[in-house]
Amino acid sequence: MQLPLFEAVPNFSEGGDSAKIDRIVDVVSAVPHVRVLGLHSDPDHNRSVLTFAGEEGAVLDAAVALAKACLREIDLSSQTGEHPRIGSLDVLPFVPLEGATLDDAARLARSAGERIGALGVPVYLYEAAATTPNRRNLADVRQGGYQGLAARIQDSIWQPDYGPSKLDPRTGAVVVGARPFLVAFNAYLDTSDVSVARAVASKVRERDGGLPGVKALGLLVGGKAQVSMNLTDLETTPLHVALDAVRSVAAEHGASVESTELVGLAPLETVLQTARYYLALRDLDERHVLESGLWKP
Amino acid sequence: MQLPLFEAVPNFSEGGDSAKIDRIVDVVSAVPHVRVLGLHSDPDHNRSVLTFAGEEGAVLDAAVALAKACLREIDLSSQTGEHPRIGSLDVLPFVPLEGATLDDAARLARSAGERIGALGVPVYLYEAAATTPNRRNLADVRQGGYQGLAARIQDSIWQPDYGPSKLDPRTGAVVVGARPFLVAFNAYLDTSDVSVARAVASKVRERDGGLPGVKALGLLVGGKAQVSMNLTDLETTPLHVALDAVRSVAAEHGASVESTELVGLAPLETVLQTARYYLALRDLDERHVLESGLWKP
Repeated sequence: MQLPLFEAVPNFSEGGDSAKIDRIVDVVSAVPHVRVLGLHSDPDHNRSVLTFAGEEGAVLDAAVALAKACLREIDLSSQTGEHPRIGSLDVLPFVPLEGATLDDAARLARSAGERIGALGVPVYLYEAAATTPNRRNLADVRQGGYQGLAARIQDSIWQPDYGPSKLDPRTGAVVVGARPFLVAFNAYLDTSDVSVARAVASKVRERDGGLPGVKALGLLVGGKAQVSMNLTDLETTPLHVALDAVRSVAAEHGASVESTELVGLAPLETVLQTARYYLALRDLDERHVLESGLWKP
Repeated sequence: MQLPLFEAVPNFSEGGDSAKIDRIVDVVSAVPHVRVLGLHSDPDHNRSVLTFAGEEGAVLDAAVALAKACLREIDLSSQTGEHPRIGSLDVLPFVPLEGATLDDAARLARSAGERIGALGVPVYLYEAAATTPNRRNLADVRQGGYQGLAARIQDSIWQPDYGPSKLDPRTGAVVVGARPFLVAFNAYLDTSDVSVARAVASKVRERDGGLPGVKALGLLVGGKAQVSMNLTDLETTPLHVALDAVRSVAAEHGASVESTELVGLAPLETVLQTARYYLALRDLDERHVLESGLWKP
């Protein structure tokens, strides 16, 4: 039996200096039994998103090593970026993969938070790892960015979960948490009218009475209306169900889906669901996939 | 860079005695760096199909070890089975996987044939490994089963490629060859009229002017008309193209596809093709699949 696997998806405040980014990523790759699964660096937002995975101990060690590297390499006070941020290592979510639960990921987040706090930086726990309701929502913790946090860190309800109650302007604070696995799935419409994307998003998202486990926003991206979705309950709402809904609501507005994209990773099961549904391949499972037999540990 | 990978899909003449089958499969599993990907044993046909894969040297060693075990364990003269067969280890095809060509697989088949012939059993090379045109087609080599081969093994055109020109009734002969990877994909229709399946098969298969890389037969399986397909050119004719053709021809006969099945393995790319097509996921590739990042060596 394999040990439970976790993913970490740290966001750090450097998106342009590739030598610096490489040094930070190398620290993670150097940890035995850790797999770097992806890196997306965005110079405009001066921000990078790294994805890595492994067993609990390996992911924990890599996350702490990453935090050290970010605190050493990134001087928040000397740089700018469009994206609101509060720290050199800005956000560090842990995600349960195979064999792991959200509670396991929350436990891992707290262990990481404790060790990162001990490096001398304030740490806030969010979402499934939060210690109080007002910290569950990441946007609330980061409200106002570095300046906003600096103004309220002395309030008793904003005492950090770990580390000092004092911000160093070079490193700021770190928000560490646990969240379920999600698939980021965007649909581009054949219109530049963002109001169509917004209408579709509002119709399909769970919050407004749409599909379970679907968050959605209407955006304008590269001149095209985009329905940007996060799918968090793929068993109930697989990609094809979400897309069918987008296609059908878009059609009511005279629009159609031109193409879609995955941002980041999707589990193999997501692709198998699609083949099961469209090809009527009732019994299709992982064991039918050649690479699964060749690669699986 | 990874070394080229090969698959071997031996068919051996024992489908009921599970202790015997286990002993044969264990010999393969014991070879380092060999992955057993599947085993299908059929007591009615008294026949098992084993699938294993690995790099060239490992697959070669495993194939020879398997041949030894079959010759030792299976006494062809003391048993019966519906499927036409000529040997204890009846057929041994090698298939090129990642990084390997059909020529590479043919070379591997000849090395295996030479070593298996040295064990004292006649070996015929077929398909891409064949040394004469009349041996390319497996059905020609096996025509008439053991009795048929026994009657012609003394003919000069049926001299074995390796091993003695004499059949031992306990072990028979082995047909070793190389063929392209294929996906076995069956569609069940909502009718018990096999003539519909035959009409569909004839319309979709390449031989009769249908789709490139498609072999198809109409069968009656479990009371349902089944279109049984082998797809050998998945780039040109992916699963969804073959299935769309089956659905449309079946509709002309008033029938529809109830379900489909894969027999054996399909490459991950096959499933990705499906998702790309139905979900308009233009840029989907292996790197989007979480397990690919976690598992790939």
